[in-house]
Amino acid sequence: MTAADDARYMARAIGLARRGWHGTPPNPRVGCVLVRDGEIIGEGWHAAAGKAHAEVNALEDARARAGGAAGATAYVTLEPCSHYGRTAPCTGVLIEAGVRRVVAGMIDPNPQVAGNGLATLQAAGTDTESGVLENDCAALNPGFVCRMRYRRPRVRLKLAASLDGRTAGADGQSQWITGPAARDDVHRLRAESGAVLTGIDSVLADDPSLNVRLPGDWRQPLRVVLDTRLRLPVTARMLGLPGRTLVFTAAPAGPAWDALAVAGAALERVPAGTGGLDLAAVMTGLAEAQINDVLVEAGPTLAGAFLDAGLVDELVVYLAPSIIGDGGRPLLAMPGLTRFADRRALSIVDMRAVGDDWRVTARPADTADPGRG
Amino acid sequence: MTAADDARYMARAIGLARRGWHGTPPNPRVGCVLVRDGEIIGEGWHAAAGKAHAEVNALEDARARAGGAAGATAYVTLEPCSHYGRTAPCTGVLIEAGVRRVVAGMIDPNPQVAGNGLATLQAAGTDTESGVLENDCAALNPGFVCRMRYRRPRVRLKLAASLDGRTAGADGQSQWITGPAARDDVHRLRAESGAVLTGIDSVLADDPSLNVRLPGDWRQPLRVVLDTRLRLPVTARMLGLPGRTLVFTAAPAGPAWDALAVAGAALERVPAGTGGLDLAAVMTGLAEAQINDVLVEAGPTLAGAFLDAGLVDELVVYLAPSIIGDGGRPLLAMPGLTRFADRRALSIVDMRAVGDDWRVTARPADTADPGRG
Repeated sequence: MTAADDARYMARAIGLARRGWHGTPPNPRVGCVLVRDGEIIGEGWHAAAGKAHAEVNALEDARARAGGAAGATAYVTLEPCSHYGRTAPCTGVLIEAGVRRVVAGMIDPNPQVAGNGLATLQAAGTDTESGVLENDCAALNPGFVCRMRYRRPRVRLKLAASLDGRTAGADGQSQWITGPAARDDVHRLRAESGAVLTGIDSVLADDPSLNVRLPGDWRQPLRVVLDTRLRLPVTARMLGLPGRTLVFTAAPAGPAWDALAVAGAALERVPAGTGGLDLAAVMTGLAEAQINDVLVEAGPTLAGAFLDAGLVDELVVYLAPSIIGDGGRPLLAMPGLTRFADRRALSIVDMRAVGDDWRVTARPADTADPGRG
Repeated sequence: MTAADDARYMARAIGLARRGWHGTPPNPRVGCVLVRDGEIIGEGWHAAAGKAHAEVNALEDARARAGGAAGATAYVTLEPCSHYGRTAPCTGVLIEAGVRRVVAGMIDPNPQVAGNGLATLQAAGTDTESGVLENDCAALNPGFVCRMRYRRPRVRLKLAASLDGRTAGADGQSQWITGPAARDDVHRLRAESGAVLTGIDSVLADDPSLNVRLPGDWRQPLRVVLDTRLRLPVTARMLGLPGRTLVFTAAPAGPAWDALAVAGAALERVPAGTGGLDLAAVMTGLAEAQINDVLVEAGPTLAGAFLDAGLVDELVVYLAPSIIGDGGRPLLAMPGLTRFADRRALSIVDMRAVGDDWRVTARPADTADPGRG
C-alpha cells in the first residue's frame, strides 16, 4: 500500500465515523474500513453509545461481503480499544478475524490507555501504524480528546451581538437580536453538545429552556446552571422539560437543596471562586459526568469569566446586522482587562452568513488544543 | 437585437467603464460599445476627467476598425450628455456619426438634465432605449449618482474594532488593532474616494496623514477636517503632504484662520450643529467641491453623529481577531440611542477575510439609495 492509499482509505473511515456524530457521546466517533487486495471488503462505524464499535461492525460487514477479513488491513480513525467496557475489546476481535495490519488515525488520547491497543496488536503479530490523517481524525472528537487529555469538556462559548458588539439595549431588552435562522443554528449547536451551561442571573432574568427545539427526535443535552447561592426557583421552566438539569452550587445542603432535588434537579457542590464558583471545579465535575462538549450560553459576566480563566476553546459569535449603541450591554465583561497590550488574541476560523446574521467562529490563540475540530 | 444581446453588449460596456475607476471623478465612469450586424466595431471608455468621453473614444475606434459607425447601435452605460462641458456634447457626435440606435444603461441622475440627452437623439431620428442593466450601471457611479440626486457625496464610514466592538483599550491605545493587510485595504478605500474626512480630536490625538500610501502614482484625496473652533495646528502633518486640505469650521475669520491659510489649508465656514458642525452643511460644501465619495475615518463621537444624522451610506468595519474587553473604547458613540427597539438596522452586503482580520461591509437599512454600488 502506498501512503496515498492509506490516506484515501482513512478518509473514507472518517466519513463513516461522521455518521455517528450525534449518537456516540460520551464515546468517541469512530469509523473503520477493511481493505484486502486493493478492495474495500468491509465498512463500519460506531453509531451510538452502548452499541457495537466501528471495528466490530466492519468485520461483520466483511463476513457478509467477503467471507471474513483474514489478511486484510483495517483502517480505524482511533486506536482500537484493548479493555473491556460495555463491549469486548476490539483488539481481540481484530486478531481473531486474522486482520494482518491495523492503521490507526490517532492514538487513544486517554493517557492511561494511550498505545495499549496497538501494543496488544503488535504482541499478537499484527503490523500497526498510526498518525494517518491525524488532525482530521482528532477533529472528529474535539470534545472527547479534550476531556481525555485535560479532564475537562471542550467549551464552546455562544454569543450574539450587534455589529458594535452589544448584546442588549441600555433598557436591557434583547429579544430578538438575531433572526430565526441564527436561533435554529444555536439549536444545532446544542444538539451536538453533551451539556448547555448558563448562570443563575440569566435563568432569573429569562427563564430559558436550554433545550434542543428542532424537528425530529433529539437527545436533550444536560442543562447546567451555575448557582453559587442556590437561588434557582423550583418553578424554573427547564425543570419541567424532558432531559436532566444539573445545578452546581457553593451552598450547603438544606431546604433549598432538598426542594430542587424534589423538583428533579441534580445538585453538586463545588468551591466558590472569584465572583462566583470555581470554574475549574465545575469543569472537573462535568468531565466526571462524561460530558465531552459543553455549550456556554451566558451573560457577559460569566462569559467573560470563562474566557478569563482560559477555559474557552471556541467562541461562536452571531453578529446581527444592527447598531445598538454604546449604551448597550457589552459582549463580554472583562474587569481585569484594562490595557490594549493585554487584549486577548483570537484566530477566526470561520465566518458565514446565517440568514440575515453572520456567524463568526474564533479560537483563543492561547489555548491551542490539537483535539479541537 | 434581442434583450439578451442588449444585456451582453451593455455588460461589455460596464467592463470598459471600470477601466476609468480611479481617474474619472468628479465625472462619472462611462463605457461605450458600438455594434453593427452583430459585431462589435468600436469600444471606448472615459479614462479621466478632462479627457475624451466614452462615446467619442468608441467612435474613434470604429473609424479605425470599420471605417465609421453609420447604422450602428451604441451601448452606453450612462445617458449621453447633450450639453457643452469641457468637451462637445456626445449626442451631437453620435448623430453626426450616423449611429441609428442608442441604448443607455441609465438616465443621467442629475435632475436638471435627466432625459435631455435621449430627447435630443430622438429629435434627430435616432432610436433610443434606457434601463438595460440599470442597477449595474448605477453601481459604476454610486458617489456621482448620490451627489447628483441628493446634492451630497456618498459617505462611507470606515471603522476598525475588536470582535467585541472596541476600537481602543481602556488606556486609549489602539495601534495596531488591525494587521498590515487591513491597513493596505484602507489605502485602497482612500484611493477611490474624492475626500477623506476626520474630526479635529482625531487630528490632535494622532496627527494622521490621511493620504494614499500604496505603490505607484495615486491622486491624493482631498483631506477634510471638521474643526468647530479652529484648533488645527499649522504644524499638522497633513498640511505638509502632497494634496489639498480643507477645513470646515464655525469659527470666524481671524488670526488662526489666516495662519492655516498661509500653511496651505483651504477653509470654509459652516453653521454649528448639535455637538459640532452642521453635518448637512458640510456635505453640501463637499458636493459643491465636486466630491463624489467621502471616506469618514473618525472617532466614535463623530462616526456616531454621521450615523445618527442618516448620512452614512455604507459602513466598512474591519474586525480584528481579538477581545479588548468592556473597558475599551466603543465603536460608535450614540448618546440618543437608549432603547433596544430603536437599534439601527443594517444589511450586511459583504464579509471577507483581509489578512488575519475580517472586513464587514454593511448599509443602514433606512438609507436605501439605488445609486450605491
